[in-house]
Amino acid sequence: MSRIAYVSGRYCRQDEAVVSIEDRGYQFADGVYEVIAVHRGHLVDEALHLLRLARSLHELRIAAPMSDRVLRHVLRRVIRLNKVRNGSVYLQITRGVAPRNHAFPLVAFPQLVVTAQRAKPADPKFLAEGAAVISIPDLRWARRDIKSISLLPNVLGKQLAREAGAYEAWQVDADGFVTEGTSSNAWIVTSGGVIVTRKADHDILNGITRLVVIDLAAKAGLRFEERAFSLAEAKTAGEAFLTSTSSLITPVTRIDGAKVADGVPGPVTMMLRRGLAEHLDRLADGA
Amino acid sequence: MSRIAYVSGRYCRQDEAVVSIEDRGYQFADGVYEVIAVHRGHLVDEALHLLRLARSLHELRIAAPMSDRVLRHVLRRVIRLNKVRNGSVYLQITRGVAPRNHAFPLVAFPQLVVTAQRAKPADPKFLAEGAAVISIPDLRWARRDIKSISLLPNVLGKQLAREAGAYEAWQVDADGFVTEGTSSNAWIVTSGGVIVTRKADHDILNGITRLVVIDLAAKAGLRFEERAFSLAEAKTAGEAFLTSTSSLITPVTRIDGAKVADGVPGPVTMMLRRGLAEHLDRLADGA
Repeated sequence: MSRIAYVSGRYCRQDEAVVSIEDRGYQFADGVYEVIAVHRGHLVDEALHLLRLARSLHELRIAAPMSDRVLRHVLRRVIRLNKVRNGSVYLQITRGVAPRNHAFPLVAFPQLVVTAQRAKPADPKFLAEGAAVISIPDLRWARRDIKSISLLPNVLGKQLAREAGAYEAWQVDADGFVTEGTSSNAWIVTSGGVIVTRKADHDILNGITRLVVIDLAAKAGLRFEERAFSLAEAKTAGEAFLTSTSSLITPVTRIDGAKVADGVPGPVTMMLRRGLAEHLDRLADGA
Repeated sequence: MSRIAYVSGRYCRQDEAVVSIEDRGYQFADGVYEVIAVHRGHLVDEALHLLRLARSLHELRIAAPMSDRVLRHVLRRVIRLNKVRNGSVYLQITRGVAPRNHAFPLVAFPQLVVTAQRAKPADPKFLAEGAAVISIPDLRWARRDIKSISLLPNVLGKQLAREAGAYEAWQVDADGFVTEGTSSNAWIVTSGGVIVTRKADHDILNGITRLVVIDLAAKAGLRFEERAFSLAEAKTAGEAFLTSTSSLITPVTRIDGAKVADGVPGPVTMMLRRGLAEHLDRLADGA
């Protein structure tokens, strides 16, 4: 049976779910999105995602199509209708439907689309060996802090990774510093044991998993620095990993074909990964 | 009566024309577009537009959904169904419909949408007085030569112009040089009478009207330099104008609130504008 999607007021078969060709999301990438993990039926860190969503909408001056209370209801209903216990819910809000014209329409009603999908079980071999990343120049616009659907450079970068047999592409700025992956944040652990990830300004998206891992590191008393690191530093780091809503913490064991340290997932990475798994369980237990 | 749109194989009412919520154009801005002027029923410089379209598709590795011959047929039919004699035809091609995943789908069929619209008569006062532009930082990605639907920064820039009471926003790079408008190319005429517009590399879109005007200038024996100009140079230029498919040549008489020269459309600008109008008539006459 088809999955069920929510599209601006209606629940419908996902394979029949449509939007207008004059939706500004389709013609101008004029919209934002969020992906929230579902763990044992619980929406993981939902409040943080909705806070970021509100910020993205604010930056683009798109009105929220409904209150958070109603949105939370819709998210839960889509999850329930699709019988998703472990997976994710995707939501997208665009500025609305209007005759094509770059400037904001005088009248438009923001459109909301929600879908839910079950998680594919992680490949244990992948986790045991860690992921390969490649490096590419960061071609994106200057406001990567907004979680917009203007994702074409991310698409092209991810495709390059795929073709290189890698899991992700780390984007590198003009000064040689890693910004982030195409759909994940980038991290290293120095040989001295310091966890490092880039400061969340306009150059990167402030990942929710990123925030949670920073918090976990602090609570565990681990040393942490929020600063840019160069590609060169990453290649000689003690450990490397990436974070995202869908992959949580994934060890990075190869960068541009060369091993990171001895080429196996590092102890700090795996400790954080266990910590994150416990965080998810605690949330699902309602603790 | 509703206008008629073409959507991947069907002609349908434009107000009922829809695409899947999993069209990659909607979720990733993974597509390209063209706008072709229609002058007395003739598609202006259609071959140049289709050439650029092919280049954009090639750069994104999206297969053309049909041959140019069939596409030309569809464009004409949409124009005819909408009784457009003077106006424009809009076409958009996306990578297709697939489960959401950044990398290219293994199987997807590129989707084509075509609409047509009549031109609104130009305001004579606007032409007589010229347009105001504002300057804004160029926030866009590094591949502006691809005519992609990843237009969010352009939307935001055009909206800033609108709110400043201006017609267009000229985007300025980190070195203080004007790249282009949010939906037009930027030009100046120096006090020495040299026509200047930026070289078409990855930093700007190579406008079709831009190409035609360069050609017109050469044929008229006017002095022309293809080089970047700074915002400061533009503000002290003898004339300024912008070019686009929909506005042809529009004199720019104010930049950031200050008059360009004596604040009226310049003679070179108006000569080029007449030359462009004649070019359109020649094409429509089949000469």
